[in-house]
Amino acid sequence: MGSRVVIVGGDAGGMTAASALVKRLGDEDEVVVIERGEFTSYSACGLPYWVAGEVESCDDLIARSPDEHRENGIDLRLGATATLLDADAKVLTTTDGELSYDHLLIATGAEPVWPEVEGADAEGIAPITTIPQGQEILRQLDRKPEKVVVAGSGFIGTEMAEACLRLGLDTTVISATEFPLAQFENLVGERVHEQMAARQIGFHGNRRLTGFRTKDGRVTGVELDDSTVLDADLVILAFGVTPRSELAREAGLPLGPKGAIVVDEYQCADRARGIWAAGDCSAVRDRQSGELLHLPLGDHANKQGMVAASGIEAAILGGEPEWSFPGVVQTFITRFCDLEISRTGVSTAEAEKLGWDTVSVSIDTTTWAGYYPGAEPMTVWLLADRRTRQVRGVQIVGGPTAGLRIDAAATAITAGMRVDDLIMLDFAYAPPFSSVWSPLHVAVRAAYKLL
Amino acid sequence: MGSRVVIVGGDAGGMTAASALVKRLGDEDEVVVIERGEFTSYSACGLPYWVAGEVESCDDLIARSPDEHRENGIDLRLGATATLLDADAKVLTTTDGELSYDHLLIATGAEPVWPEVEGADAEGIAPITTIPQGQEILRQLDRKPEKVVVAGSGFIGTEMAEACLRLGLDTTVISATEFPLAQFENLVGERVHEQMAARQIGFHGNRRLTGFRTKDGRVTGVELDDSTVLDADLVILAFGVTPRSELAREAGLPLGPKGAIVVDEYQCADRARGIWAAGDCSAVRDRQSGELLHLPLGDHANKQGMVAASGIEAAILGGEPEWSFPGVVQTFITRFCDLEISRTGVSTAEAEKLGWDTVSVSIDTTTWAGYYPGAEPMTVWLLADRRTRQVRGVQIVGGPTAGLRIDAAATAITAGMRVDDLIMLDFAYAPPFSSVWSPLHVAVRAAYKLL
Repeated sequence: MGSRVVIVGGDAGGMTAASALVKRLGDEDEVVVIERGEFTSYSACGLPYWVAGEVESCDDLIARSPDEHRENGIDLRLGATATLLDADAKVLTTTDGELSYDHLLIATGAEPVWPEVEGADAEGIAPITTIPQGQEILRQLDRKPEKVVVAGSGFIGTEMAEACLRLGLDTTVISATEFPLAQFENLVGERVHEQMAARQIGFHGNRRLTGFRTKDGRVTGVELDDSTVLDADLVILAFGVTPRSELAREAGLPLGPKGAIVVDEYQCADRARGIWAAGDCSAVRDRQSGELLHLPLGDHANKQGMVAASGIEAAILGGEPEWSFPGVVQTFITRFCDLEISRTGVSTAEAEKLGWDTVSVSIDTTTWAGYYPGAEPMTVWLLADRRTRQVRGVQIVGGPTAGLRIDAAATAITAGMRVDDLIMLDFAYAPPFSSVWSPLHVAVRAAYKLL
Repeated sequence: MGSRVVIVGGDAGGMTAASALVKRLGDEDEVVVIERGEFTSYSACGLPYWVAGEVESCDDLIARSPDEHRENGIDLRLGATATLLDADAKVLTTTDGELSYDHLLIATGAEPVWPEVEGADAEGIAPITTIPQGQEILRQLDRKPEKVVVAGSGFIGTEMAEACLRLGLDTTVISATEFPLAQFENLVGERVHEQMAARQIGFHGNRRLTGFRTKDGRVTGVELDDSTVLDADLVILAFGVTPRSELAREAGLPLGPKGAIVVDEYQCADRARGIWAAGDCSAVRDRQSGELLHLPLGDHANKQGMVAASGIEAAILGGEPEWSFPGVVQTFITRFCDLEISRTGVSTAEAEKLGWDTVSVSIDTTTWAGYYPGAEPMTVWLLADRRTRQVRGVQIVGGPTAGLRIDAAATAITAGMRVDDLIMLDFAYAPPFSSVWSPLHVAVRAAYKLL
């Protein structure tokens, strides 16, 4: 008799796992996926660019459609929601009926934080974490809103501010922190803030949203904690997301930061009862500190889906899992208009919380040789461990190339490289790409002097 | 009584060392630099872009002028050539008089390979390794040449072909190999070759230059080994360079590949007699194989100048040198028109020569998420060790970002990372920058399957 794997959630984590499992399990085994929506395997990270009109259709965001998955042998049930989990009996009740399973993979993703204030259910208030939500924002945009408020200034808030700018909308961002992108050092957020100001995007920093003004069930304004009232006929909610971990909670599993499901390196949450988790509903470990974090990102979800599949495969077929998830170094990248913004490793605030003894530097350089046309300013911030001299964190903001240069820093941090090692590292040099000392070189040399 | 350091050569390696030494040696010590030209500390790598008109003036290429160096306390003697070295007596004879020294740093760079065929001294035949040579080419361009032949298809040849294209010149490249950029795998060279063809640049592959046609002392054509004769009123020589290592040869020092000066990790060639070398005249070691190579690149020269200075400083003032040069991983980057081209680590040919048991893969992907506007093709080639599973070489060719992505691969190779480690590496992901599996991920996953 075969085994049945039930996967809840049909996006990155779930479908990566499902696709791997149908290929690798036996013919007698079953892979069932429950997805409450109608889409599968789409790039949620691409939603702001679709709303902005840069990506033409939401179909472009879909890597693999439900039909393609079904052709691959996945028993995919759309429009079905899990309603009850009996983890001891290994039975999941869904709106589509009861499903017993041998292994359950929770890949339910995360849901947008909705402010708990009056009027929050009015029309014209919409988050952007799914295709249907994107469709709703596009419907609102068809009504030609006069004033848009983007509530939140993290990655999605910043990307949506740019989207609104592209669409020629009068846009204001409200932010709980002084500058946008609180995951970054202030010197990075300040640059983004300057760019927002230069492009006439309003910005209310260090403010909390306290209420909505509405009329006839539609939003008309946003109230802030300093009594400011901003007119708004469209409010895009970008207060971040929280893991959808109800099933794990029902099973009595331990939850981590923001309620994310705690898993081992094989993405297993409960080996005895065959419960696994992957993607935005699960917690990740920082490779440097070992701390648990909630970092909803599509690339982690894909890797975790692959890891979970190999763990489930090994549990069913025997043997060691092919993959384990080693954790993350907190690499992020985004863009605001012409500004590229990236980070890896830990920030000053995180290092302080961890009690690490670090030094930090920031250096101003250019994107490539200063004499080569089009060179633009670029700032590199670097955090190093005073004792081990290891690089602990890097953040870059500036013109073209500022973003992807972070990959070399992420690799160096993963390898535990010291400042000294990086100074002599053989980075690529040619005038249209880099100065003779690359921006990372300049930063590690500055850190070396301080150490 | 102080020490005297004599440095021969006033570009990257020499002046980096001189600048560090005047700062760190005592007041009673002397730093004398002999430079046979009139320029110091300029970017030779920027010459093609100056000739192309992308960089306005050769002054832009100069990082620090002779006057600035003199203000810093360097005894700089321009227009002076070393004529005789008595290494045992520690006396260097120059066209500017005799100089005794305690330490001699040879930073004489490299000189262009000049074909030993008839007519090679005709007017209109010019290499491009120095500012005066660039000035000569600009003078030739003022005469509005009708047909230009670029002799050689390495980095400089390819860059000069692009420069000629920008200037609207009828251009033909001759190459000793089937495709341009022989340092790369054929699949990379092929892409460059296609781009040359698409832009009406003539290309004669697998050919040797056997002679020049001249008239009244001016070049009129180029003869190839298949009896082809190409009309040419300007021939740009780009057959590479050889180390200028005569001083080391006079001192009886061992020479390495192409006659490059062999040095230890402190850039010391002869500790007993106080002879050091840095930059394009010296050999470097490959960090993976330990093999000696001649890799004339400005970024190595800068690092080596810094290392040599710290070695000389320690020899004079006592103590351990602050720096050592760990060698290179053969990172290169260039551009041909819209194509970015980069490599790090070893090639198939080099791995074979070393007797390494490797597997290689090449994958076709896009510069960023395929659905995001402007995504262009990108090919990643990867070589991995069959036994250790370590990444040994990576080459990338394609649209924007293909170039600098190599820095992450160079870091991984330096750290000795395995294919398996890279699959789970936390590279930056956002649709305008990368797919959810970055191009390097895709390549290591393909290699993993093969292994």
